[in-house]
Amino acid sequence: AGGSVVLVGAGPGDPELLTLKAVRALQSADVVLYDDLVSAAVLDFARREARKMLVGKTGYGPSCKQDDINAMMVTLAREGRRVVRLKGGEPMIFGRAGEEIAACRAAGIPVEVVPGISSAQGAASRLMASLTHRDHARRLQFVTAHARNGRLPEDLDFKALADPVATTVVYMPRHTLKDLVARLMPAGLDPSTPAVAVFAATRPEERIARATIATLAEAVDRAVDEGASGPCLVLYGHALAAALADAACDDTG
Amino acid sequence: AGGSVVLVGAGPGDPELLTLKAVRALQSADVVLYDDLVSAAVLDFARREARKMLVGKTGYGPSCKQDDINAMMVTLAREGRRVVRLKGGEPMIFGRAGEEIAACRAAGIPVEVVPGISSAQGAASRLMASLTHRDHARRLQFVTAHARNGRLPEDLDFKALADPVATTVVYMPRHTLKDLVARLMPAGLDPSTPAVAVFAATRPEERIARATIATLAEAVDRAVDEGASGPCLVLYGHALAAALADAACDDTG
Repeated sequence: AGGSVVLVGAGPGDPELLTLKAVRALQSADVVLYDDLVSAAVLDFARREARKMLVGKTGYGPSCKQDDINAMMVTLAREGRRVVRLKGGEPMIFGRAGEEIAACRAAGIPVEVVPGISSAQGAASRLMASLTHRDHARRLQFVTAHARNGRLPEDLDFKALADPVATTVVYMPRHTLKDLVARLMPAGLDPSTPAVAVFAATRPEERIARATIATLAEAVDRAVDEGASGPCLVLYGHALAAALADAACDDTG
Repeated sequence: AGGSVVLVGAGPGDPELLTLKAVRALQSADVVLYDDLVSAAVLDFARREARKMLVGKTGYGPSCKQDDINAMMVTLAREGRRVVRLKGGEPMIFGRAGEEIAACRAAGIPVEVVPGISSAQGAASRLMASLTHRDHARRLQFVTAHARNGRLPEDLDFKALADPVATTVVYMPRHTLKDLVARLMPAGLDPSTPAVAVFAATRPEERIARATIATLAEAVDRAVDEGASGPCLVLYGHALAAALADAACDDTG
């Protein structure tokens, strides 16, 4: 009796970016089910006695078997365990939280959500760039560039993504970046729009590739050749001009 | 010597949603310059000896005198103080952080940003609604409904805001909500689109008004008549259907 599930946002990687509420949840968990995007330093906040189980092949790996994760969460909670489902970044933004909440509710398991700093916020803080600078951006938008089939989603609103007064954050951009850019240009995006790729934002191995939207794919390839790894995020829009002008807080992480 | 500025995101209100890094910054600050959207419980994390100064008339008050805030930050840091500029939510999302970073840099003052949980994330966690549920949302977008002149910004991309497979979060919606809805309908937004207003998300006085986009303005007026107050956020899109269906975690806060 008394089992429960808490979906906890682990933030972008720096363990100092956990919220107090997330730390408290980790410290009272019997079991922690974590994604492979969660940094080891974050996992260290769990109590030592807790069982820690890697469940999520997030990123580009083979299918996530979301149903299996849901079933495991529900089974453990039914056994009376306090389950923390620890997810990279923010659970409610491209985190499949909806499906996990629905599974818990269908099973009558108490479920709660603790927000986390999204990787976009982590990247913005490292770039020192406001995502909504009032001189440059009316709208901030988040999309994923990775559909269920691994390709660029066909039903993206490319016109909205080409808006010159928006800032756009692209999750999971790596495999489809060239395709995305090839759709944005005809939709009207200025090729000289400032664009940045951030690898492993807020982690010791963080790397930043600065470019324009026209040259970003090339800059990303170069960064990977030079060793960039970890979760990657692309940001573009004129609000990023500040981050481009400033190479002071640069590629060294 | 040794003065510095740290822009710190205070999160939506619940002090438990501060990050560890934010707490550390507050505990080592000599001066805390805070906005009126910052909750008192968050301010309590500052060390007792720190000077705490209310500077920001955010929200709908008279003009923010951003230049005065910038000047104060720079002056205090030049006197050698460790200054924390504490801002509601996330500094890099509709937080005027760009202008404050630029002012510090122009003055040669070391400046850093500590992200915070945005009010949108706070609201999503309370609504138990994924903002990007893969069945309903391809794109998540944030806009402000309040231009410098207090009116609805004229240069919003209403077509993008009427996209049936986007989730939209509207900051500062109160004064212009009727105007916004009047622009969204002709742009193609389905009047039955689920819509929610969240007042004072994650605070003890939190209130949630659930409606459709067509009836939301009315629901907001009713909530205010019934005592709803504090920072207000509007969210709409089919991803919010889950939050509408579920009135379990309802209006009681």
